[in-house]
Amino acid sequence: MALGAPAVPRLDAILSVMSGPRAAPITPESLARERCAEIRAGTPPLTTEEAGSLAAGVAGEWQIDEGEIRREFTFKTFNAAFGLATRIALLAEAQGHHPELEVGWGRLVVRLSTHSVGGLSRNDFIMAARIDRLAGG
Amino acid sequence: MALGAPAVPRLDAILSVMSGPRAAPITPESLARERCAEIRAGTPPLTTEEAGSLAAGVAGEWQIDEGEIRREFTFKTFNAAFGLATRIALLAEAQGHHPELEVGWGRLVVRLSTHSVGGLSRNDFIMAARIDRLAGG
Amino acid sequence: MALGAPAVPRLDAILSVMSGPRAAPITPESLARERCAEIRAGTPPLTTEEAGSLAAGVAGEWQIDEGEIRREFTFKTFNAAFGLATRIALLAEAQGHHPELEVGWGRLVVRLSTHSVGGLSRNDFIMAARIDRLAGG
Amino acid sequence: MALGAPAVPRLDAILSVMSGPRAAPITPESLARERCAEIRAGTPPLTTEEAGSLAAGVAGEWQIDEGEIRREFTFKTFNAAFGLATRIALLAEAQGHHPELEVGWGRLVVRLSTHSVGGLSRNDFIMAARIDRLAGG
Repeated sequence: MALGAPAVPRLDAILSVMSGPRAAPITPESLARERCAEIRAGTPPLTTEEAGSLAAGVAGEWQIDEGEIRREFTFKTFNAAFGLATRIALLAEAQGHHPELEVGWGRLVVRLSTHSVGGLSRNDFIMAARIDRLAGG
Repeated sequence: MALGAPAVPRLDAILSVMSGPRAAPITPESLARERCAEIRAGTPPLTTEEAGSLAAGVAGEWQIDEGEIRREFTFKTFNAAFGLATRIALLAEAQGHHPELEVGWGRLVVRLSTHSVGGLSRNDFIMAARIDRLAGG
Repeated sequence: MALGAPAVPRLDAILSVMSGPRAAPITPESLARERCAEIRAGTPPLTTEEAGSLAAGVAGEWQIDEGEIRREFTFKTFNAAFGLATRIALLAEAQGHHPELEVGWGRLVVRLSTHSVGGLSRNDFIMAARIDRLAGG
Repeated sequence: MALGAPAVPRLDAILSVMSGPRAAPITPESLARERCAEIRAGTPPLTTEEAGSLAAGVAGEWQIDEGEIRREFTFKTFNAAFGLATRIALLAEAQGHHPELEVGWGRLVVRLSTHSVGGLSRNDFIMAARIDRLAGG
């Protein structure tokens, strides 16, 4: 910011915060197009209401708990389970947001939460929507 | 073999060689159900005719040359290309037969040949049929 | 077996069964050279004594419980954790014996047990010794 | 930029461009700490002199050609080769810069170049230095 610029929030920033999640309904397509953003220190976790509104963008198989979201995938082979785990690992590195992955025979469990907010953030739902897309395609 | 056993081929082995590939037409399903077998020392590479008959079991995208078979897959993302490469790598370890894999942005090239016969073996076509199935599912 | 061969077990087979685990002390090197074998129906799980003797072949970090063995690896990055998970997945496909893998940020937990015996088998320790070798090299 | 700020380049930006690569000698440690940056449209490829100076930050095994850099790794197993390929793939997604990877039995070839500049960029050397670190650790 240039010296002397007024120390007031800019209008577009205010509008973005205000209208962000309300501007358009959340869909799997819209959520999967977003990128995980850096979380600023002090950001609170999503409220139950906020999480509920983002849930419209992820598959019904996601179980949404207070502190994390979780989806279990089943497969006929270890090969298929580890194949999806690898694609999720690559996605996690690209987005800078990492799930917990549990791989067993024909089974993959994905858990998402955001350590720095002590609960759920929008990033968890963005990852979930992108993982849904990987699993379906 | 017990001492003194006669050094003649066993009848079932002869029949298996004679009737093997002719007993039933090769299909993608039948070929993908076979497992790669150990190659005995001195086994010759497939003849052009044998390779041609096995080609009925693999996708039309496989390019069949004298010494190798090759298929190129294209994808929209590096993630998808490396995901398939990983599934092929896991398959290769399970079957004990390893392709050459080239991964680039949105592109995967798979090359199969059998070093110990100095050309193509049935194992290359079994792997190809199984890779086709991974790519389609 | 050639026609007319006597239907008695061969001496070396008898000795191998009798002296197998006792013939030589278990070391990490000896155990990591073994391959996972198919488990015959009805095979019982290892006794505590047998598991204890095989424990000499695996790293001290393995926690040996009644029904499973478990090792946790820690890393500075997700990249390193998932890299080892991938090598273990490839090994599992080659050996036909699959662990449970849990990958988190900088952390990999490996769990081994043998479903078909309802507990631990020698295969779990062979895999553990081979995983130790992957982790060290 | 705040309204009314003068439309001249800032001094620190000028100095950074001028002194950038010259400010301190390139070492493997310094290069591996950099992150791949977005390349602006119209950026020219590195000159031979620039590439030569960055070469101080990568292992001697990298072969530096006009349009690409290339390193071949050899291993005793397919497992080890594919394990490093996976770690490089994860790194590539994190950095947003992707090499060509060729995996064969006990062998991995990595090729780096920057399509958008039509040759080599600093990003290729940053990736190379980071890959060296993965391979050594």
